[in-house]
Amino acid sequence: MSLKLNSISDNTFSIEDLQCLVKNELIGVDQIIDQSLKSDIPLIENIAKHIIYAGGKRIRPLLSLIAAKTFNPIIQHETLYLATAVEFIHTATLLHDDVIDDSNLRRGLETAHKIWGNSASILVGDYLFARAFELMVKTNNLTILDILSQTSAKIAAGEVLQLLHNQNFEIDEKTTLDIIGAKTAELFAAACQTGALAGSADTNQAQILHRYGYALGMAFQITDDILDYTSALNRGKNLGDDFSERKITLPVIYAYHNASTVDKNRLTHLFSETDNSSDNFSSALEIIQKNNGFDTAYGIARQFAEQALEGLKFINSPITHSLENLITFCLERKV
Amino acid sequence: MSLKLNSISDNTFSIEDLQCLVKNELIGVDQIIDQSLKSDIPLIENIAKHIIYAGGKRIRPLLSLIAAKTFNPIIQHETLYLATAVEFIHTATLLHDDVIDDSNLRRGLETAHKIWGNSASILVGDYLFARAFELMVKTNNLTILDILSQTSAKIAAGEVLQLLHNQNFEIDEKTTLDIIGAKTAELFAAACQTGALAGSADTNQAQILHRYGYALGMAFQITDDILDYTSALNRGKNLGDDFSERKITLPVIYAYHNASTVDKNRLTHLFSETDNSSDNFSSALEIIQKNNGFDTAYGIARQFAEQALEGLKFINSPITHSLENLITFCLERKV
Repeated sequence: MSLKLNSISDNTFSIEDLQCLVKNELIGVDQIIDQSLKSDIPLIENIAKHIIYAGGKRIRPLLSLIAAKTFNPIIQHETLYLATAVEFIHTATLLHDDVIDDSNLRRGLETAHKIWGNSASILVGDYLFARAFELMVKTNNLTILDILSQTSAKIAAGEVLQLLHNQNFEIDEKTTLDIIGAKTAELFAAACQTGALAGSADTNQAQILHRYGYALGMAFQITDDILDYTSALNRGKNLGDDFSERKITLPVIYAYHNASTVDKNRLTHLFSETDNSSDNFSSALEIIQKNNGFDTAYGIARQFAEQALEGLKFINSPITHSLENLITFCLERKV
Repeated sequence: MSLKLNSISDNTFSIEDLQCLVKNELIGVDQIIDQSLKSDIPLIENIAKHIIYAGGKRIRPLLSLIAAKTFNPIIQHETLYLATAVEFIHTATLLHDDVIDDSNLRRGLETAHKIWGNSASILVGDYLFARAFELMVKTNNLTILDILSQTSAKIAAGEVLQLLHNQNFEIDEKTTLDIIGAKTAELFAAACQTGALAGSADTNQAQILHRYGYALGMAFQITDDILDYTSALNRGKNLGDDFSERKITLPVIYAYHNASTVDKNRLTHLFSETDNSSDNFSSALEIIQKNNGFDTAYGIARQFAEQALEGLKFINSPITHSLENLITFCLERKV
């Protein structure tokens, strides 16, 4: 089984290609991460590093750095603090998400809450969130702090909304997209907007980068939700993380909306039982595929990718192509 | 059974007496709380209001307001945002604490996590924390943001430290006081310091208020830990919250250190079993009393109260007496 994905460009880009442009700055971000996590209490450092170094792509700090460079070839040291803060906000939400979802695995590794328990995960999440704000203060830019504190509230509110629609197959498309927006796209948007501001963009330019980042984040997350099924299959893994936790993601919702009563019942049955056999995963995959769950979701991801691309025509920068490449990467990555 | 508490002043003050000085400003804080909690998602508002309006004394915003007024008779509107932010940080930590401690009751009311579950409590805690930073941005003062973000990290780190010493009767005095410091005194200190800065105090004056607030917070929390046993008795309640959750607070630790082997064993036994009968509570109370747990703890609270008072001699303000009254209140309150 494979998905037919049309490229919006003829090239594909690995994350490494994109990182090249700000290679030294990303090393700087890693140094700030290390410095910021030093603690008299080793448990804090251990938990924080476990999740921060667990194979994350650092895509959010990358966005801030590239957004800054779009408007200024020289990236200021303050921007590295911003980029690290964005990564810390993301990591704090992951720690809390794993507690909320009772997840056992993240990126193939045992989750912090499985190893160290819920309490430590909640508290180290809080710690990282506080550290994020400490780093933001170092940017000396209240607008950046304003944007990122508002974004953090939106993220939490979006998670509450998601909680309220847990296991709701009948959720409408708008609410689903709003949840994806709050969970992922808002932080992408804020990373781009604040990065642009740190690179001395004017308010209008920063707003364009916000819209770009939001659309990019939507394309990224929807593709992620598709890959959670399809790349699990490609890698020979038995189960995707989302299915094993019975998360009702966008492809599942579209499939359910398109499905016959028989398939609707099969799908709700598969998502209500806890048997994580590969047969159950294959059945779910088949029903989602058959009812165009992946194709429909991918079509929406493409629409967001095109929205992101559209906004870039108002940006005149020697590195606009990097922002374009990020879109292609988000949409066409295989893992 | 009653405790012999010597007054450091001849007067006692109710919280209402202290609130009088900044009555209108406290109304302003309540209005900002209401505005800040408006949400499209009613659950967020319900949970946040449940804990914020559950009979809390608003002592932390009061500290910020009185600290500001110490240096400037006119309290700026920005200071109200600061005072609300401090209350939100406090409330966010309470929501997470209740999840971590699995508390059923807070101030006689069912806790949010018992009513709405862990996930919603974690997320609304995150939401309030983010909203706190949004409000701090409105003070237009990066130093205030710096102090409160550092304080938030210290609070979380202190909670991790507490987690590591859970049920540890052998914990040393310094670590115990550090934990109390991180959990309560740091936010008292920051509330006073940032309040002073919002009232145009210079760095040195604000630092004095920080030390004042820290010592006040220590006196407050230690008294709180004593009252959790003694006022439960006074009010005819069967059990204090701390005993019912088997929290090993300062009076228990001092009693344990002073106790004979027989009493040590009785104490560890009482704290290891889950039977919440009033007989068990009475036994624990008796052992703590007999081994001078309350008196020793109260002696330490008094030392901190005197430290707080000592610092005030460097402050020349028409309302220094209010800062003194706060000390008396913290030390001598009965509930």
